[in-house]
Amino acid sequence: MTDRIYLDWNATAPLRPQARAAAMAAFDVAGNPSSVHAEGRAARRLIEEAREKVAALVGAEPRNVVFTSGGTEANMLALTPASGTDGKVPERLLISAIEHPSVLAGGRFAAAAVESVPATGDGRIDLAALTHALAARKGRRALVSLMLANNETGVVQPVSEAARLIHEAGSVLHVDGVQAAGRIPCDINVLCADLLTLSGHKIGAPKGVGAVVRRDAAVPFPAPLIKGGGQERGARAGTENVAGIAAFGAAAAAALAELASDAGRMATLRDRLEAGLRAASPDLVVFGAGAERLPNTTLFALNGRKAETAVIAFDLEGIAVSSGAACSSGKVQPSHVLAAMGVPLELARAAVRVSLGPSTTETEIDRTIQAWIRISSALLKETRGIAA
Amino acid sequence: MTDRIYLDWNATAPLRPQARAAAMAAFDVAGNPSSVHAEGRAARRLIEEAREKVAALVGAEPRNVVFTSGGTEANMLALTPASGTDGKVPERLLISAIEHPSVLAGGRFAAAAVESVPATGDGRIDLAALTHALAARKGRRALVSLMLANNETGVVQPVSEAARLIHEAGSVLHVDGVQAAGRIPCDINVLCADLLTLSGHKIGAPKGVGAVVRRDAAVPFPAPLIKGGGQERGARAGTENVAGIAAFGAAAAAALAELASDAGRMATLRDRLEAGLRAASPDLVVFGAGAERLPNTTLFALNGRKAETAVIAFDLEGIAVSSGAACSSGKVQPSHVLAAMGVPLELARAAVRVSLGPSTTETEIDRTIQAWIRISSALLKETRGIAA
Repeated sequence: MTDRIYLDWNATAPLRPQARAAAMAAFDVAGNPSSVHAEGRAARRLIEEAREKVAALVGAEPRNVVFTSGGTEANMLALTPASGTDGKVPERLLISAIEHPSVLAGGRFAAAAVESVPATGDGRIDLAALTHALAARKGRRALVSLMLANNETGVVQPVSEAARLIHEAGSVLHVDGVQAAGRIPCDINVLCADLLTLSGHKIGAPKGVGAVVRRDAAVPFPAPLIKGGGQERGARAGTENVAGIAAFGAAAAAALAELASDAGRMATLRDRLEAGLRAASPDLVVFGAGAERLPNTTLFALNGRKAETAVIAFDLEGIAVSSGAACSSGKVQPSHVLAAMGVPLELARAAVRVSLGPSTTETEIDRTIQAWIRISSALLKETRGIAA
Repeated sequence: MTDRIYLDWNATAPLRPQARAAAMAAFDVAGNPSSVHAEGRAARRLIEEAREKVAALVGAEPRNVVFTSGGTEANMLALTPASGTDGKVPERLLISAIEHPSVLAGGRFAAAAVESVPATGDGRIDLAALTHALAARKGRRALVSLMLANNETGVVQPVSEAARLIHEAGSVLHVDGVQAAGRIPCDINVLCADLLTLSGHKIGAPKGVGAVVRRDAAVPFPAPLIKGGGQERGARAGTENVAGIAAFGAAAAAALAELASDAGRMATLRDRLEAGLRAASPDLVVFGAGAERLPNTTLFALNGRKAETAVIAFDLEGIAVSSGAACSSGKVQPSHVLAAMGVPLELARAAVRVSLGPSTTETEIDRTIQAWIRISSALLKETRGIAA
């Protein structure tokens, strides 16, 4: 697949060279990190070095990082009725309507304890609705889960403002930082998040590693989801994914070091892409365009063109893009994110996501625009053919 | 650590070359297995090829394999009050007293629903006690969790006999095959296990991957522990650890292909080791020596010598061994396995585990025996010094 163009970085990022090197070095360390001998201590060291790097990416202390098998496990662990800072247990879970499916699943809260907070048309959580929801059952502490940036639209959420409202109400904030980390600043203290989840493979680590981070040691880690060993200070049992964790650390360090330059370059290319798409298709809708967005993401649609057809056409052109989230692809369900934004069903069904990465080039963007010109006119004919 | 001798394969096995190659090849596949484009389909293919190989290791159908982040998660998932073959939900969990901590934790059963079944002096589950426990509350279906081989002693459990008793009682059998798979035959149909758990890193895959296998499609998979995505047929959400899974498949294929020859060679070396140790220390106790054991494991003790001291002394000699399980190492708790076997506390505290692998050599074994001769006499002096 030499000439392929990969523009589905929000689904998963190609491995960073630093992450690959760290994984391969870890493969040479035979020990179990729980073993006391030299091999075990060497494996332990790799984990603790990675913990420092992942902590640094989000401005946390290393001891406040718990490694998991990925963002989904991290969200599942974080969404536990036991995350109060003072021993008070949240009794309900408030989640914005645009969260990732792994948050929408509600973690370990009973379904009846989960409340949805609506989004606005520009793809942000509705803060007035959040205020209302927090106040409505004031005596019942809430855990609020809000993503920093949406995986489909790239829209950045007003997390700090939400944090103020949440903490004033005596509630607790969990931030899903999976799509934001490494692309925009994601400092747990600036965000005022009590808990933060990360995924390694979105920033160029291998798939299969993630983390839950707490702001400070006063925030209790959630009760373990996976029990039966003292690993990760009792918060997550099981022999650690040493190579994955080491690679996560290396990817985090690289992402942090290159964040500003990567973001600038990706934003320029993303804007170039959107300008090219709009020039080709004046009726093109870019979702969340009026809001602050991740520098790498564009979700667009041309009414009447089916996204699945467009994604397949792009694939045949050698370009990997997505119709919304990777987890939803394959299912022919329209995006819950766009539904929450009030986007009509037919337009939502046309939504194509292009997400860039640090290694995306201008040539790739220009080839993508050229491909869209061919694809959109073919789709148009197809649509007319069906209508006829 | 060029001259180091690694004899702690039960804690974790060094990466098999085939697994390393598979992981590195997977690192080059950028896609998310849930994505529909070529990159996504390539990642999906790696997973499904690995599923076939892991299934073949245990005589199962690929569709009956669910990948997890390791043996601990697999045990946690398997031990769920929802594993009946006819929709009848087990109400209680019976576990032998010598199970791994990840099984002793009881999975998702309430603590009050967990019953312990004693072991005999030779380190096997007490089948009479199991029969009694099954009959004692006959109307209440049990899930019984029994390991195929003990991680500390290597003693092989009478799983097929237990399966007969369990199924006659209308109950369900989960087998923890983590230490046995790849070392002795571990066919889910021969064992008559309803559910079986595996860990990748014990057979030479990277740490961070495991599986739950069901005997046939009539056995429902346990309700997901990690929710929020349709991966693994809904049994385990989250983007798959593609490289780990691909490597697990490669390790499983290699382990299966080499099982008989590896086992024979390891047994010869293990017997050579035990003969050497006994010649040096006539009072040496080898635990479970009277029972069928894994070909690679010996757990031995010389009364009065502290295991922690011996492990450190071996480490200084360049030899990695363990005082019992890796998860317990570091804690100064005596082995629950030896306690269940009725071994006196002082002797249990002296227990050193040496576990071999397919690449272990005669030279390494002879160097280990020589090291023991030095260590045991030094320990003896130390013990006498303390006593004086």
